[in-house]
This record gives sequence, C-alpha cells and structure tokens, in this order.
Amino acid sequence: MSIITLTTDFGTGSPYVAAMKGVILSIDPAATIVDLTHDVPAQDVRYAAVVLDSVCPRFPKDTIHVAVVDPGVGTDRAIVYARMGGQQFIAPDNGLLSRLAERNPPEQLIRLTEREFWLPEVSHTFHGRDIMAPVAAHLACGVPPERLGAPHPQLVTISWLTVHRDQRRVEGAVEQVDSFGNLVTNISVDMLAGRPTDERACIICNIYETFGIYRTYAEQPPGTLVALIGSSGQLELAVVGDNAARRLGIDVGALVIVAWE
Amino acid sequence: MSIITLTTDFGTGSPYVAAMKGVILSIDPAATIVDLTHDVPAQDVRYAAVVLDSVCPRFPKDTIHVAVVDPGVGTDRAIVYARMGGQQFIAPDNGLLSRLAERNPPEQLIRLTEREFWLPEVSHTFHGRDIMAPVAAHLACGVPPERLGAPHPQLVTISWLTVHRDQRRVEGAVEQVDSFGNLVTNISVDMLAGRPTDERACIICNIYETFGIYRTYAEQPPGTLVALIGSSGQLELAVVGDNAARRLGIDVGALVIVAWE
Amino acid sequence: MSIITLTTDFGTGSPYVAAMKGVILSIDPAATIVDLTHDVPAQDVRYAAVVLDSVCPRFPKDTIHVAVVDPGVGTDRAIVYARMGGQQFIAPDNGLLSRLAERNPPEQLIRLTEREFWLPEVSHTFHGRDIMAPVAAHLACGVPPERLGAPHPQLVTISWLTVHRDQRRVEGAVEQVDSFGNLVTNISVDMLAGRPTDERACIICNIYETFGIYRTYAEQPPGTLVALIGSSGQLELAVVGDNAARRLGIDVGALVIVAWE
Repeated sequence: MSIITLTTDFGTGSPYVAAMKGVILSIDPAATIVDLTHDVPAQDVRYAAVVLDSVCPRFPKDTIHVAVVDPGVGTDRAIVYARMGGQQFIAPDNGLLSRLAERNPPEQLIRLTEREFWLPEVSHTFHGRDIMAPVAAHLACGVPPERLGAPHPQLVTISWLTVHRDQRRVEGAVEQVDSFGNLVTNISVDMLAGRPTDERACIICNIYETFGIYRTYAEQPPGTLVALIGSSGQLELAVVGDNAARRLGIDVGALVIVAWE
Repeated sequence: MSIITLTTDFGTGSPYVAAMKGVILSIDPAATIVDLTHDVPAQDVRYAAVVLDSVCPRFPKDTIHVAVVDPGVGTDRAIVYARMGGQQFIAPDNGLLSRLAERNPPEQLIRLTEREFWLPEVSHTFHGRDIMAPVAAHLACGVPPERLGAPHPQLVTISWLTVHRDQRRVEGAVEQVDSFGNLVTNISVDMLAGRPTDERACIICNIYETFGIYRTYAEQPPGTLVALIGSSGQLELAVVGDNAARRLGIDVGALVIVAWE
Repeated sequence: MSIITLTTDFGTGSPYVAAMKGVILSIDPAATIVDLTHDVPAQDVRYAAVVLDSVCPRFPKDTIHVAVVDPGVGTDRAIVYARMGGQQFIAPDNGLLSRLAERNPPEQLIRLTEREFWLPEVSHTFHGRDIMAPVAAHLACGVPPERLGAPHPQLVTISWLTVHRDQRRVEGAVEQVDSFGNLVTNISVDMLAGRPTDERACIICNIYETFGIYRTYAEQPPGTLVALIGSSGQLELAVVGDNAARRLGIDVGALVIVAWE
C-alpha cells in the first residue's frame, strides 16, 4: 500500500485535483492519497519548493510526492522522477525540487518519456492528470523507475535569498508567510549559533524592531511583535494573537536583521 | 474496498462534510472517500452538473459518486440511485445528473425509499448525511441497488446553453470559470472540426478578440489573451500568467464566437 | 485499521496539516485520516468545541479525534487523552473537549507525559505535529492509553451562553454561523417542548422577527427569514436562498427569543 502526496496550485476544492485522484485510483485502487497543499499561489514555483522541502521529510520512506506547479506545461520542459533522501518525487523540472535537492542530492534522476505509463490521450495543458498522476500510480504498483524514461543529467536550480553573517549581525529575509500570518525567515537556528532563545538579540524587519528571541508565542501579551524559532527550525516573527503579515504589511522578501550590540 | 466520492456546496472545511464521512465510515470503515469538490457555489446545480460530468469518468468502474447540491431538501423531490457509464451515482433528482446522463443514458434508475438503509433519524434539512451517505456506504458494503427502492422513470433534465454552428462561425458561451480564472466554453474541439490548433480562427468574447487557437499557455507573452483547447477538450480563453475572468470581467454565460474569414 | 480525525485552526491547505499526516503515516501507514475541519477561526477554542461536539458522535466507536487549537502552545497547559462516549480524543486541555464532556463524562483521562510516544525533537510551537500526531498514531497501532502518561484529574471547562426558559418564552443566542450563513442557536428542540414545527411561535433575533417554526427552507419564498430545527436538532434562522448572517449583519452571540402569545 503506497502513499502518494499531491501538491498543486489548482486551489483547494479544484475539480482538477479530483481528476488526478480518479486517474491514480483507476490504476492503483489501494493507493493512500494525501493532499500536501493545493493552495500554492498560481505558478509560484518558489513557494511550492519551500513547502515541499519542509513537509516531505515528515512522510514515510518511499512515499511518492507529485508536485504540479507548471507554468511551462506543454513546452519542452522535462518532467522528472527523482529519488532523494529515501523518498520519491515526480514534478516538472522547473526548480520545484531544487530546494530539496540542496540538502538531499538526487540518488536517481529520470526524465519521463515512456508513454506506456501515461494516459492514452495527453492534453497540452494538464500533464498533472495525463502524465504525472498515472506515472505515480504505476510506481505505486511496483513499476521500477528505470522503466519510466532515460537518465536525466541534473535538476534545474533556482537561486534563493541568501543569508549574510558576520560576528554581530545576521541578515536574511522573510521566505514564507504561514496561514497564521507569521513571517518565516530563511535564518535557521544554526545560523544563530544554535541558540533557540536569546535575550540579547535585536531583530529588525522593515520599520519594526523587537528584542529577544523567545520560546513561545504565549510568553508575551497579545499584540506584541515577538521573534522565536518556529517549528521548522527557522527564525520567525509573529504578532501574539494576530496576523503579523497583515498587521505590519510585510510580505515575502522583506529584509530581516538579527543584531547583537 | 469501494471508492465513494463526495460533491457538495457545503464549502471546503465544512463540518457537515465531516459528518457525512463519519456516517459512511461507521457503516463501511474500509471505504475510500475522495472529495470531488465542496466548493460548488451555494445551490448551483448547473455548476455541479458540469463538474460531475467532467471529473467522474476519471474514476474507476463502480465508483459511488454522492452529490449533495439540494435546494429542495425536505420537499418531495426524489433522491435517486443511477448507474451510468459503468459508475454509480446518488443525488437528488434536480438536474445534478442530467449532464452526465446526456452522454451516458442511465442503465439503472431507482428512487431511494427503503428507510432501512437510512439513518434511524432523518432530519428535514440534511439528507446528505441522513440518507445519501448511509445509502452510499451500504452500496459499498454490497447491498444491491434494487433493494434501495422502486424503479424511477427518468431523470429531471435542465437545459444547457447550446452551440450554434454554420460554415464560417461557431457561437457558444462561457460555461465554467476554473480556479485559475480561465474561461472554459461549451465549444468542444469536435465542433471546431477537430482542429486542436488553428491559426486562422478569430475568437471573440465580449469586447475582447484574439487570433488563433494555440497549443499551450506558454507560447505567448504574459498578459496576452489566448485561446486553446483545454484539458477537457473544450475551447478555453486564458490570459497568460493572469486570471482572465477577473482581468476581463467575464463570467459564466458570456457569448463566445469563433469565426473564420 | 484505525480512523484518526484532525481538527485545527491551521486553515485548509496548510502544509502544517500535511506535516501532521506525514508524521501519523510514518508511524501507522494503515491509518485512515479524515479532516474534520481546518477552518476553525484562529485560536477560537469555543468554535472548535462546538464543532467537535456536533460531528464526532457521527464517527465509529474508538475513532481517535485529534484537535489542535492551541493558543497556549509551549506553556505548561496540559495535553490530554480522553475517552468519552466510546470515542477517543487528544487535545490541549483548554476547553476544546469541555462541550463534549458535558454530555459524555470522561471515562478515562490521561495527561500526555511519556516522551517515548512523541517525536524525538519537540518544538515549542507545534505540539500538534510533535506530540499529538505521533501519540494518535501510536494509539492507532495499539499502544494502551495508560502508557501515555499519568491520570489527569479533570478537564478545563468553559462557560457557554445559557438558555433561559419560562412558560411563554425561551431566550438563547446564536452559537454558530454555518457555511451557508445560517444562524444556528443554542436552543434545542427539547427546549421547545420537542415541537419540530410550531405555527404559533414568534422568533426574534436582533431587530428581525419571523413567525412559525417550519420544517424546511423550501416552504417559503426566496428572501424570507425562516426559523426551523436544523440538522443538529437546534433552532436555526435562515434566509431562503441567501446568507442570513451577511444579509442581516448578525453574528455569533446575538440574542434569540422564541415567544408565544
């Protein structure tokens, strides 16, 4: 019994997602299908790459993750099978898997070319349903990845906002806004010398400033801007009991500085 | 192990959907339940009928599709079991299944009357939970459809926007706006003489005009209005990298003309 | 094969929900996971308590319900396992389970303390993923509740809007707005002397008034304010074919009076 996860920008409730599930279950009725998220902003490959990187490692070994954020659908961009970190991925090769690949170099990389594992009719606009879903289901049924196509040389990479550090200062950026409006940065706890709390740090984002990195949201009164290490090990800015992104008017890409006197 | 899909206008995240799943799993704990969509606009039977028609055929033979868009709940409208195109359907007889039935004449049609397959207490406002969910689960457990009630003469039909054609012109309408804002028309590729691309066609919608039917979104620059044959074989208008419905202010029902000089 | 339901305020489509599912399936790949709802308004314990109370009893005996609405995450609030009404619950002890507990006094109550059933690394901000999800999966695999921690004396309770009755009058309040905008009150059919319809009642909410309690929405013309006993046995106010909450500007907490001359 295989697990197949789906990540798309179709929107929760999209019948396109249901069509993919129908295709999968027609080939492997025993597959366990899990929605990773369908609320990736339209064509936002970068957003999806971060989500895949943070969530997929939570799944069991050999899980098949299908990601369909595919602005180039119908062009000659490759669709690939990748084995990384003990898990399996099917996605257009447009950077979607590049974030995961940084930490987990691909153990196997194949370009999907063997049409016998696709739907008989392939549309030009919906390869998620016509190629990726059926290939995932065939994998789940035991088809070895080698049969899906020819080896693919390497994944397309995308460049990420980098973090600059010196002894008194770490400079990064907001990389994701979560569903609570918390501002998740690209500054990991390791870059803060592994200190999950730090009373002496000053954190600046845009025109806002807060002192100290705390353990939890609940230690400070409602309405306070707090910094803490979030559940994915990244520095995070939150307004207690409120939506920080909305309240402060801050979005992905905003500069975040951690400084010590 | 049976597959049961759910289509409702309860809204994604509605606890009413969860109640239906609880009822199903209480009767058949081994059922695989798939959300087709719960984001049908409230009481929009027509919208749901199009979704059911386009998505259900992707599912395995014998799948049980339950559709609850039911403005007449509690009146004497019938709830029916229908077998069509090798699949099974449970829905109020209000036109929900009429689009599917056009292409797949019902092989079996039964009015649900046998209360032994319903919940012991039936509310007047939620037959999805009290009648349709338990009946679906009993079917999944092997109860033959004949036992659910008496034969039903025929399905209620609703009238659809029709397509007019002559040699130089096809006149149809926008029939659905998908989650990307693409305008899906009722003009199928067959009505365009089966030509999936056509450089000589002029497509007019409202005050907007575009030339040529293309293969993919990606062939033209962002912001361009393009016409193409979408993933369900229907002519579709899209704005590359944008939401056409919002950008152009066009909704379901808008006239679409394909003309050749 | 165990059933685990999830109720959170993470928002539908949140990757945090997917992370919890990954953790569960890593421990028990055979678990059937059902989303109860993830659209609880942020940190709205009261809302979630009502949803749990109305939906959980629809699930099979022994279902494991995990509820994560947890404003106090990272503080010393307890996380508990409760057995109530033949079902199992895992939640922070902040009132989430108090509504269920009123009708179903806990048969077993344990504070989660045994770290061997948690993830090896526990964050300060996401106990849903790091404690509650793995504990649910271990329960699903057959770990007896006694092993999860020590007995917990009693659940935190929260106070609910109460209903006042005398012979000619019942006074309650709107307790929930459903996805259709219907106003669900805390006045149950029992409080109306068990009369599911009553032509002689006058129902007042805010500045609005309607006469009679009817059987269904469909008995009156579109746009009419109607009162009826909803699918959970509670008095409900609806505007036929419209969203009553939006149309009348009424929200949770509004006073509702049923009076007889």
